[in-house]
Amino acid sequence: MELLYEGKAKRLWTTEDPNTLRMEFKNDATAFNGEKKAQFEEKGRLNNAISTLIYGMLEKEGVPTHFVREIDETNVEVRKLDILMVEVIVRNFAAGSFCKRTGVEEGREFSKPIVEFSIKSDELGDPLVNDAYITELGLATEEDLAFFRESALKVNDLLIKFFAECGLQLVDFKLEYGRLCEDPSVIVLADEISPDGCRLWDLKTGEKMDKDRFRRDLGNVMEAYQEVLERVKKASEA
Amino acid sequence: MELLYEGKAKRLWTTEDPNTLRMEFKNDATAFNGEKKAQFEEKGRLNNAISTLIYGMLEKEGVPTHFVREIDETNVEVRKLDILMVEVIVRNFAAGSFCKRTGVEEGREFSKPIVEFSIKSDELGDPLVNDAYITELGLATEEDLAFFRESALKVNDLLIKFFAECGLQLVDFKLEYGRLCEDPSVIVLADEISPDGCRLWDLKTGEKMDKDRFRRDLGNVMEAYQEVLERVKKASEA
Repeated sequence: MELLYEGKAKRLWTTEDPNTLRMEFKNDATAFNGEKKAQFEEKGRLNNAISTLIYGMLEKEGVPTHFVREIDETNVEVRKLDILMVEVIVRNFAAGSFCKRTGVEEGREFSKPIVEFSIKSDELGDPLVNDAYITELGLATEEDLAFFRESALKVNDLLIKFFAECGLQLVDFKLEYGRLCEDPSVIVLADEISPDGCRLWDLKTGEKMDKDRFRRDLGNVMEAYQEVLERVKKASEA
Repeated sequence: MELLYEGKAKRLWTTEDPNTLRMEFKNDATAFNGEKKAQFEEKGRLNNAISTLIYGMLEKEGVPTHFVREIDETNVEVRKLDILMVEVIVRNFAAGSFCKRTGVEEGREFSKPIVEFSIKSDELGDPLVNDAYITELGLATEEDLAFFRESALKVNDLLIKFFAECGLQLVDFKLEYGRLCEDPSVIVLADEISPDGCRLWDLKTGEKMDKDRFRRDLGNVMEAYQEVLERVKKASEA
């Protein structure tokens, strides 16, 4: 099996089936565009378990994803995609780069979800752009962007409800999409959905239960991920 | 007469008429959000003269602006506005922050003009945002943004043609809009249009004829502005 791609938190390997890949969750944690780095022994396992349960829920709710099946604790089988170089971010509350950019205080609830696009590029620091930038650069078409918006808002509705059942506030999250290699006309949800790419606050205490614990040195990073997994598991079984 | 507002390049003074103000062009040049500063003896006069000729052309072409009349070499009378805190940028060729953000080389011609919006805020560094940010922050409505886009593209068409008659390539430029104090339902073009806020390249030599000469220490800053004025004057008289 050949290593096709190594990202900051995952590796993609070929399989015997040309249309599927093995996606491996690493224990590496990175923040601030890779400037801050650490290793957490349980991170790959926890993110894989959380993401697998969430993709299962999304597939059940009619959202097409790259997910095929769990292979083991840190590996899943996924459909082979041409990833679109656009990150789709949905925000329900002000946090992170939104606050830095606008001066708005963390925690302000938006009147409706904000969808934004950034260029998926470590080198450029995943810069926020508008639709015209993306179409001009050929990263996606206007139709793709309309699809991203519609899909991301649907995923947001489903995730808000699901995480509320976990006692968690969905503050914001990032999605990635790709075209199926076997049928490039079909775009499906790719990547992972985990506390690495979602901001999740405890609904009662407001405690941060996501990668901000690592970004801001709040401690108990894996304890929070473990707690998220337990709640996600319980909500999935309900 | 009372000083109402002092910006980086202009001052606004009250007049006897509550619906008009005096706008004074200063000799200050600033770049990189005010980090780089200088004084150019002729700058106020040159920008006023260039901007006055351009606003005259735009008014004649049916674009409503704040411009009333020239008072003297560095002062114009303008209609009193509530300025909208959104900067509207139109790009025909890649330059400046577009290149920095996307990694695209300077000079690439776009397949169609790119319109973008940023928050008008020195403190925040005029950050690029998308429509959802602006409406969420209450800086403008969706209708305002649709109007900005339409108006900015019309202004772009007029300016491209006008500057071509001056032997100048219009690379990109910034516009600001405001609501008339006497009738807030009316939005008009505000601010100035000059080599401070437009990138202009000589059509034959490609030489930069705008504030990039100051930003990049290319020298002959006022000589370039003077040349732009002479060409704009000639085109206006034609």
